[in-house]
Amino acid sequence: MSITYGYPKAFIFDVFGTIVDWRNGVANVSQKFFDEKNLDENPHSFADAWRAKYQPAMDKIRSGNRGYFPLDILHRENLDQLLSQLDLTETFSEEEKQDLNRAWEQLPPWPGCVEGLNAVKQKAIIAPCSNGSIALMTRLAKFGGLPWDCIVGAEIAQNYKPHPNAYHKSVAALGLQPNEVVMVAAHNSDLVAAKECGLQTAFIARPEEHGARQTIDLEPSEKWDYVVTEIGELASI
Amino acid sequence: MSITYGYPKAFIFDVFGTIVDWRNGVANVSQKFFDEKNLDENPHSFADAWRAKYQPAMDKIRSGNRGYFPLDILHRENLDQLLSQLDLTETFSEEEKQDLNRAWEQLPPWPGCVEGLNAVKQKAIIAPCSNGSIALMTRLAKFGGLPWDCIVGAEIAQNYKPHPNAYHKSVAALGLQPNEVVMVAAHNSDLVAAKECGLQTAFIARPEEHGARQTIDLEPSEKWDYVVTEIGELASI
Repeated sequence: MSITYGYPKAFIFDVFGTIVDWRNGVANVSQKFFDEKNLDENPHSFADAWRAKYQPAMDKIRSGNRGYFPLDILHRENLDQLLSQLDLTETFSEEEKQDLNRAWEQLPPWPGCVEGLNAVKQKAIIAPCSNGSIALMTRLAKFGGLPWDCIVGAEIAQNYKPHPNAYHKSVAALGLQPNEVVMVAAHNSDLVAAKECGLQTAFIARPEEHGARQTIDLEPSEKWDYVVTEIGELASI
Repeated sequence: MSITYGYPKAFIFDVFGTIVDWRNGVANVSQKFFDEKNLDENPHSFADAWRAKYQPAMDKIRSGNRGYFPLDILHRENLDQLLSQLDLTETFSEEEKQDLNRAWEQLPPWPGCVEGLNAVKQKAIIAPCSNGSIALMTRLAKFGGLPWDCIVGAEIAQNYKPHPNAYHKSVAALGLQPNEVVMVAAHNSDLVAAKECGLQTAFIARPEEHGARQTIDLEPSEKWDYVVTEIGELASI
């Protein structure tokens, strides 16, 4: 579709929602913990409530009001808040809370992602550009078989998307120029920020990321460089 | 051999010399450039002379006299010095010098390394802990088929081995404790530094890293946790 540049030298990917199904993944792990305690919490509501604390937690860091902490720590802080709100703080031991926090390391890739990434990897560098830490991205990759060449993103940048540093420092770590790199995401806001940093952009809709009644990011919000329905299509653009 | 800990959660590897044959790799690429210019430089002497500038360049950063610059830049500075010493500065164009500097991205793995790393990867996280940059490690991995889970090392730490930060920050980026991680190297000095940081240690001799007349690092200098002759042996310790 794009004729401005040659084939990209790297594709960097949003991960939560774009590559992996965080909502069902977190719900599946949480359900096991609820079952052990005979709780009838709705695991999808729990996942949604946990995720709802994600952007506010990162906002403090993006705004400069807090130094960088990896997402694993923010997830744990958010979990503690959520358990408190649900009056479940005493229900789980410290060790159980640590294990529950590792739900974010056990998220299934969307169908076709592993095959698609392997195809793209034959032609360019592939790496996550996620708000997840290197430790989290590494474990997610081992869990789901994601064949990354390397890991860039928030920890490399010491700041969270959509702060421009997250894109600029990721591109620099790859030894490339912004226009040699494609940001791939299911979230239009991620692509808006990447485009402002000079990256190429690719949108893939994930209409069930937030469940059956999702209303956002069902379609590209503007004319991105590429719009695909499977990751593997990026191997033949 | 070690019975102190359970099976390690991660193995981090020195790369230049331990995983890849930098001397023959750099010599092979350099030879092509010399042939094009009808030069009769000895490519192995050239590789040795280039590499001899490696530690002094990093010393300035390790000592705090210079901020962190990725190794790609140090390699290029060292190349320019070397070409000047050989009265070859004008022989190569700027583009040719950039290409020649990429010799360090085209280093063949020692026999058995790829298979060995794949075996270890089934049991633990594997990552380079090299003085090479993320960009350089990524390209080396694609060149040689090195199946890293992620990349840690100098760029993560913003300092060079054997500075303790290079080990401590790499272990932290993996979300692990030092005693859960094994540093694997063909250089005893690397293992001395890793051990001081609390990591486990594994030695593998590379008796031809520096050519047929190598005199250093032919044997382990002390009782490391593991001594292997093939990387794959680490999968069954």
